[in-house]
Amino acid sequence: MAGNVFGKLLTLTTFGESHGKAIGGILDGLPAGLKIDFSLVQKELNRRRPGQSSVVSQRAENDNVEFLSGIFNGYTLGTPIAFFVRNKDANPDDYNHLKTAYRPSHADFTYDSKYGIRDHRGGGRSSARETVARVIGGALAKQLLHNFNISIIAYVNRIGKVSVEKSYLELDLENIENSEVRCPDTVVARNMVEAIKNSAKQKDTLGGEITCVINNMPIGLGEPVFDKLNADLARSIMSINAVKSFEVGSGFAGSKMKGSEHNDLFVVKDGEISTKTNYSGGIQGGISNGEDIYFRAAFKPVATIMRDQQSIDSGGESIILEGRGRHDVTVVPRAVPIVEAMAALVIADHLLQNNIARIDKLKR
Amino acid sequence: MAGNVFGKLLTLTTFGESHGKAIGGILDGLPAGLKIDFSLVQKELNRRRPGQSSVVSQRAENDNVEFLSGIFNGYTLGTPIAFFVRNKDANPDDYNHLKTAYRPSHADFTYDSKYGIRDHRGGGRSSARETVARVIGGALAKQLLHNFNISIIAYVNRIGKVSVEKSYLELDLENIENSEVRCPDTVVARNMVEAIKNSAKQKDTLGGEITCVINNMPIGLGEPVFDKLNADLARSIMSINAVKSFEVGSGFAGSKMKGSEHNDLFVVKDGEISTKTNYSGGIQGGISNGEDIYFRAAFKPVATIMRDQQSIDSGGESIILEGRGRHDVTVVPRAVPIVEAMAALVIADHLLQNNIARIDKLKR
Amino acid sequence: MAGNVFGKLLTLTTFGESHGKAIGGILDGLPAGLKIDFSLVQKELNRRRPGQSSVVSQRAENDNVEFLSGIFNGYTLGTPIAFFVRNKDANPDDYNHLKTAYRPSHADFTYDSKYGIRDHRGGGRSSARETVARVIGGALAKQLLHNFNISIIAYVNRIGKVSVEKSYLELDLENIENSEVRCPDTVVARNMVEAIKNSAKQKDTLGGEITCVINNMPIGLGEPVFDKLNADLARSIMSINAVKSFEVGSGFAGSKMKGSEHNDLFVVKDGEISTKTNYSGGIQGGISNGEDIYFRAAFKPVATIMRDQQSIDSGGESIILEGRGRHDVTVVPRAVPIVEAMAALVIADHLLQNNIARIDKLKR
Amino acid sequence: MAGNVFGKLLTLTTFGESHGKAIGGILDGLPAGLKIDFSLVQKELNRRRPGQSSVVSQRAENDNVEFLSGIFNGYTLGTPIAFFVRNKDANPDDYNHLKTAYRPSHADFTYDSKYGIRDHRGGGRSSARETVARVIGGALAKQLLHNFNISIIAYVNRIGKVSVEKSYLELDLENIENSEVRCPDTVVARNMVEAIKNSAKQKDTLGGEITCVINNMPIGLGEPVFDKLNADLARSIMSINAVKSFEVGSGFAGSKMKGSEHNDLFVVKDGEISTKTNYSGGIQGGISNGEDIYFRAAFKPVATIMRDQQSIDSGGESIILEGRGRHDVTVVPRAVPIVEAMAALVIADHLLQNNIARIDKLKR
Repeated sequence: MAGNVFGKLLTLTTFGESHGKAIGGILDGLPAGLKIDFSLVQKELNRRRPGQSSVVSQRAENDNVEFLSGIFNGYTLGTPIAFFVRNKDANPDDYNHLKTAYRPSHADFTYDSKYGIRDHRGGGRSSARETVARVIGGALAKQLLHNFNISIIAYVNRIGKVSVEKSYLELDLENIENSEVRCPDTVVARNMVEAIKNSAKQKDTLGGEITCVINNMPIGLGEPVFDKLNADLARSIMSINAVKSFEVGSGFAGSKMKGSEHNDLFVVKDGEISTKTNYSGGIQGGISNGEDIYFRAAFKPVATIMRDQQSIDSGGESIILEGRGRHDVTVVPRAVPIVEAMAALVIADHLLQNNIARIDKLKR
Repeated sequence: MAGNVFGKLLTLTTFGESHGKAIGGILDGLPAGLKIDFSLVQKELNRRRPGQSSVVSQRAENDNVEFLSGIFNGYTLGTPIAFFVRNKDANPDDYNHLKTAYRPSHADFTYDSKYGIRDHRGGGRSSARETVARVIGGALAKQLLHNFNISIIAYVNRIGKVSVEKSYLELDLENIENSEVRCPDTVVARNMVEAIKNSAKQKDTLGGEITCVINNMPIGLGEPVFDKLNADLARSIMSINAVKSFEVGSGFAGSKMKGSEHNDLFVVKDGEISTKTNYSGGIQGGISNGEDIYFRAAFKPVATIMRDQQSIDSGGESIILEGRGRHDVTVVPRAVPIVEAMAALVIADHLLQNNIARIDKLKR
Repeated sequence: MAGNVFGKLLTLTTFGESHGKAIGGILDGLPAGLKIDFSLVQKELNRRRPGQSSVVSQRAENDNVEFLSGIFNGYTLGTPIAFFVRNKDANPDDYNHLKTAYRPSHADFTYDSKYGIRDHRGGGRSSARETVARVIGGALAKQLLHNFNISIIAYVNRIGKVSVEKSYLELDLENIENSEVRCPDTVVARNMVEAIKNSAKQKDTLGGEITCVINNMPIGLGEPVFDKLNADLARSIMSINAVKSFEVGSGFAGSKMKGSEHNDLFVVKDGEISTKTNYSGGIQGGISNGEDIYFRAAFKPVATIMRDQQSIDSGGESIILEGRGRHDVTVVPRAVPIVEAMAALVIADHLLQNNIARIDKLKR
Repeated sequence: MAGNVFGKLLTLTTFGESHGKAIGGILDGLPAGLKIDFSLVQKELNRRRPGQSSVVSQRAENDNVEFLSGIFNGYTLGTPIAFFVRNKDANPDDYNHLKTAYRPSHADFTYDSKYGIRDHRGGGRSSARETVARVIGGALAKQLLHNFNISIIAYVNRIGKVSVEKSYLELDLENIENSEVRCPDTVVARNMVEAIKNSAKQKDTLGGEITCVINNMPIGLGEPVFDKLNADLARSIMSINAVKSFEVGSGFAGSKMKGSEHNDLFVVKDGEISTKTNYSGGIQGGISNGEDIYFRAAFKPVATIMRDQQSIDSGGESIILEGRGRHDVTVVPRAVPIVEAMAALVIADHLLQNNIARIDKLKR
């Protein structure tokens, strides 16, 4: 039952500890006959990689994915696609000081308590390095979605307290990847970089917020009553390390509006039914209505700080944890491809599920 | 695959359309030998019922649950527990005006598009009446949790823009059920009632927010990496009708803090490891750490308003929807037992899952 | 996790103890828009009913199914279909002698050991009465299959040692329902009746064998490597009470043949690929090849015999179990609709699964 | 939904095509803290390997498993265990003649029809080479079972028509691995070798039968009504390539007995409840009763024969398939560790499932 499988018809199973031999996974259920562009997979991995800019962690990892199965002459076979990325050899002694230490707001204590054993090197299974496998799985799911003209794009709309005030509709999302903080508002982006540099000077860390937009959605995706599209998106995003909140459409702000303001009135344009406003965020009754889906996720500040911290060890004794090594001041820009990957897995899975909803769509 | 099953080891499958014969479900996986107090189940159903006070819908439903299996001489058999509540006979003609109408921000359009057929009476499967089955399932799950001294309690912390400013720790949660809006802060509760009455006069509706607290949590619940306890809670709550956002622990606000402020430092009290602060909301790395779990969910305003609204019908023709019938100005107070029920199902499921995490806990 | 759910995309969850309030279930995943013929469901239930002929149990049960959800104006909504059949009121005192008794080759001892509690009345959950729900679920699945011209038919090919020697291809399967033992070979059927009557005189019981044939199969059903069509059929049939063996195609006998004899050579007839022989039983590599699927299942003799038997009670004390009540000498004829029902659920589920196997079959 | 996952609480997901880069899998759900003996894993792989004796295929594969995750300092972490075995580099041209050919009683035609694409090299995903991953997963599951003193042992009881006539109770199972055909009856084993040699001379192939015995079973494993232990064993074994029949306990023969002969009477020995006979095969009502579990599986003769065969290609044209290469006359001896592996996965999974059946066994 262990929780390492994501999805129902399209399932991603991930494996790997941060400093074990490899991180990888199996993507099962991708339909046969899909052409795979390997360079797009690597491109997504590179987006996640540390060392992409002056404001994120300076380690240079070269995460090169090796595919072991499921693809033949560049097309999916309909069989499981296994892949992995080798971890760099680390000097195990580098982690000796963490063998028994419980870092504040990390998972050392809970893993130790739950399992009675723990790979202490770099957080082991609890490390965000696991998301390498999510990004690869998501990159494959995206290629399925591209066949149906569905696109998913995310950006950073807040770092610490520096926030984009515009809606995604007012932004030029083409700018995202030009920004080292993946914020399409260039003025705000500059302020975010400033905030990150200030935080680094203070040996402190920042959280922030990501907005994700899904364009050209088919109508009908989502499986009430429990597997509503919004519920599955929420779970997928909340399963990413450091995410503390999720909101879809009007979200928190919408809950302060009146019904008469919040209702999305239907209109017919060119024979197509759409809505005047989109407070629903493209999902009604748990099912996509064809409008854009948009949602936001907030990330807590990075728990590893470059300062000494009081803590305890596994024996309950007081210790001082020194801040050392190279760590991100904020992970939010690097989390952008991870958010997109999880959303892609959800939408692709629901696309498959929706193909068997009606008898008049079925084939022998 | 249809999405009517919730949970992994403890599964709730629900069925029923709002004005079909019945709403009900099957709870499977509740361990054998649990004493069931039927009056507690009925009590939870009554908390969900309309007509409880002057500020919620005035229909008087008597939802009496009938159990069909799985309980013998007052104890669970370890076999599936089936139950249902008959719906009141409705005059089908009362719903003729909704046969082809698409109500704004309801699920009429999406259900019709997805399935090609729809029970238009009272929203059919998309109606919040389905939550009757969740409340029953949750009431049984709560009884499992009570055996392990885990308690779950939720309250309304905002209606529209009227909000409780205190933390749950500063409130007397014993007051919740004394308040007709289920708000333990009596001053704020009065203002909420006022806001609801004003909204009713304006023939408008309100949303709001619920806080849920889980006390006396065991350490170790949650199954990384995808079935983190926070991710499963998010999905469970986001699957409730009208919920638009979810946040756990420090949530959205926490994402604006610095790492040095947000980290929960460990302390040892009476030989037990705990944390000084609890921004993590009782979950670290997706696993409970023994501190209180607390989370918040925001509900959009009720989509059915007592005013005429422009809309379209299934043929794409413009129509005017009249506001009629008796409807809640806000559903938030009635959603309190639903939130608790979903949380109970998640925690009970994870309690079972955690029983097989370690070899030294297993029995032949 | 409790094992009361069958299927993946089309799932049947059953509930109910033999002498509890009701037996029933939820069928989830049946696509929307399927016309339901309720009389066909009742007809299947009647085929399973005791008291159909002189040679099966004489109790007259009227099992009338009530549907609670999922069907609207005679068509499936794509929402869960819940149904149940009330059990007859039984005098609980009739079962007092079984409260602590462990009947040989029944499940009394194992249920008691596993769960620590047991509904002793008529076998409780372990009773074959549970198959009422399977027959109803299967009757609905059959209606999906009929839309795709797939038909499933089973018959008794052996009672005790009285056996049909011909292949199903040599029999007139139209005869099955004319025979009170559901054997299409009229001569053998007479001998079977004789054998049953003799066994009744001896206060003894008989087992036997059922053959099931699936005609007009689509090509491509089955999901290697674990969910091969043969594997899923095996599980479905072996989950029926009293089944001790399962074989598909040439089965046990085929394992004695040489490869050169056993290989099914391909031929092209009217532009369609088929095989000269069909030792494979219509399944190759776990996937249907369009030929008839046929399989056989053997049932042990009924464990309840009309003689006194030595046994023990739950305290480990020796007891004498008296043979009393009205019981079937053999259940094999009544198991025919149950076998068909399980096969129908498997094929319908795989029909759905196969609809998402290839990208060129998918729709937005 | 693709069918590459086996199990519920202990899940094995396998991947790999016969001549792709690797065969491997992920075993998820093995509890934390289990000491792993890697040499036992390799030993099981060696038992499956071709080239073990004069009567099986002469290719020498060295299947060396590499573990990528989930094990730390020799103990399981409770996280997913990923592993793989690289396939030997094959000359792709060696398989050109099979690109479009449909071999009789192989899966070429069905895979092509289902997926529209196929890795034709050595059978691709349909090859029995996939069972490498099952043997590795099973070897890990066996180590869990050894902690609870449960042992699983299988042997060949028939090759073609040469059969062991004794029950497993009359055989010395210590002899199995000394026999090149894995038959513990030395006289019969000699005859089997003779039969294989004769078949080789005739350029033909043989099937056969395997018996599997599970000793020292706990009472209570199995989850009625669908996940009966016998049903799950049936599915697990029927999912192995070439298996055509499965029987448990008295099986097919038992279905010819009378109830009075077949019932297993209870006895009390040394305060323990057991049964005089064991026609039930250790399972009653789908739940283990503590007696030995034993079952048999029959394998069809190998489809690849060293003779020319008429067949067709993917265009429907007639072709002649030449018999060439080195192939096993029979796979039954090599299937022994595969049968054991699948049984081990089933029993280990049910051991976990049974740990949450009763409230009095649960821990906080």
